[in-house]
Amino acid sequence: MKKDMNKPVILVVNDDGITAPGIKNLIEVMQPLGRVVVVAPDGPQSGMGHAITIGKPLRFDRVDLYPGVEMYKCSGTPVDCVKLAVNKIFKGKKPDICVSGINHGLNNSINVIYSGTMSAAVEGAIEGIPSIGFSLDDFSQQADFSFTKPFIKTITEQVLKNGLPEATLLNVNFPKGDGLKGIKICRQANAKWSEEFEERSDPYNRPYYWLTGYFQNNDKGEDTDVWALDNGYVSVVPVQFDLTAHHAIPILNRYDFKVEGVKSTQNTPPTTHHSLDGSSLG
Amino acid sequence: MKKDMNKPVILVVNDDGITAPGIKNLIEVMQPLGRVVVVAPDGPQSGMGHAITIGKPLRFDRVDLYPGVEMYKCSGTPVDCVKLAVNKIFKGKKPDICVSGINHGLNNSINVIYSGTMSAAVEGAIEGIPSIGFSLDDFSQQADFSFTKPFIKTITEQVLKNGLPEATLLNVNFPKGDGLKGIKICRQANAKWSEEFEERSDPYNRPYYWLTGYFQNNDKGEDTDVWALDNGYVSVVPVQFDLTAHHAIPILNRYDFKVEGVKSTQNTPPTTHHSLDGSSLG
Repeated sequence: MKKDMNKPVILVVNDDGITAPGIKNLIEVMQPLGRVVVVAPDGPQSGMGHAITIGKPLRFDRVDLYPGVEMYKCSGTPVDCVKLAVNKIFKGKKPDICVSGINHGLNNSINVIYSGTMSAAVEGAIEGIPSIGFSLDDFSQQADFSFTKPFIKTITEQVLKNGLPEATLLNVNFPKGDGLKGIKICRQANAKWSEEFEERSDPYNRPYYWLTGYFQNNDKGEDTDVWALDNGYVSVVPVQFDLTAHHAIPILNRYDFKVEGVKSTQNTPPTTHHSLDGSSLG
Repeated sequence: MKKDMNKPVILVVNDDGITAPGIKNLIEVMQPLGRVVVVAPDGPQSGMGHAITIGKPLRFDRVDLYPGVEMYKCSGTPVDCVKLAVNKIFKGKKPDICVSGINHGLNNSINVIYSGTMSAAVEGAIEGIPSIGFSLDDFSQQADFSFTKPFIKTITEQVLKNGLPEATLLNVNFPKGDGLKGIKICRQANAKWSEEFEERSDPYNRPYYWLTGYFQNNDKGEDTDVWALDNGYVSVVPVQFDLTAHHAIPILNRYDFKVEGVKSTQNTPPTTHHSLDGSSLG
């Protein structure tokens, strides 16, 4: 595709599927900001995390749902959508920004790791594209997204203008309902899901299980996304895909690993921190 | 299940499926170290990342493949396996350690994020279980895992003895072939995949696409897992599931987000770093 030099190119993805109201609302915010290209799953892909499709082929087809918007549906995961967009549509010429969502349901705290919406944004960031995931605390197909729009607009505009720190993306969550107090830059709350599997019997008397559970937050920090959302703010968490626990490296270098016939070699000098300004890259 | 107080309880998972040679080799290393419980997918789940199954129910059944080993197969993802193990088998009494693998193929660098093997270990860590993922640079069903065993044994023993720093797990990778020089504690190399989608036509002349690509490493650091593996070492990367890019918070607080009628609020004092000793938890 050709890039109009005056207009930023905006890749829109999601995990709820191409017909979800959330992505329609996101497209509406993006249309005045640039040239919009949509690549979304052909059905719901919630909870797919960073899954990619390697054991079977993908379908990838042009669709025309909304006037004037270049749209494609894909049979794969949200991460597949980003990979297909980069490789088959943009052909190496990266879009100026990748926005994902608006997700039906929160992706705050540990949800970032299970979320297809956020994983699509992570994949955008891995590709070097400034990327943002947007999520609203409302699973309903009739969810009201209207009050999120001015926030999504200003966040997107600021990222288009300033970019993002290297190898980071944004995880933006909205509480349900209007009357938001503003935007808070947060850290990911240290919370988790407590699972409960509901056992049922099929017509042949064989058991099967539904994953259910509840969100359990014991992190009382007022600098977390959970706190921000509970207190009427839009939460913005900068997210990274370098998963290295750098602080743990010197601790592990003191462990006494022993293998017969092999000289213990882990006690090397402390490693350098991954350079975020890229100076360690060759 | 009842816990023998003298023996650690070891949860074994993988993503290549319950019949893979890799998990058989991992079980063989674990049997002398404790009481082994295996929960693995009933088929291949490579590349599933941190996907969970929420749109359909799960099957979960006892199987007896290896004498004296308590084994279950699950129709879901590697992360589902860990959730089912914690909830249906251990019923809240956590195992002493969770080991995942041995994966057929490397999970170094950015692969940590796509890997079902590593995501199962991440899920173990989220559950508060000391967790390790093991992977070998050999996709073959005839892969030789024997030389990895003394390394897996000492790493597992050291983690059983010392535990791991809070909210971290280990990503352990082996180069192919014998003659290893030792163990290196590393950071995740800043590398990525360059995708190429191979287009084919089905018998009805409709296109479909296979995801292919090559691993692209521009990170020349000698403290990375890629370097360690290239130079004959076992790479051990400590991994965390707090994805917050803490260093980016003060930068984002300087962005000029503006929404009509809403007072800009993101410029709050610098947030506290997520306390790794748990002191910020209520």
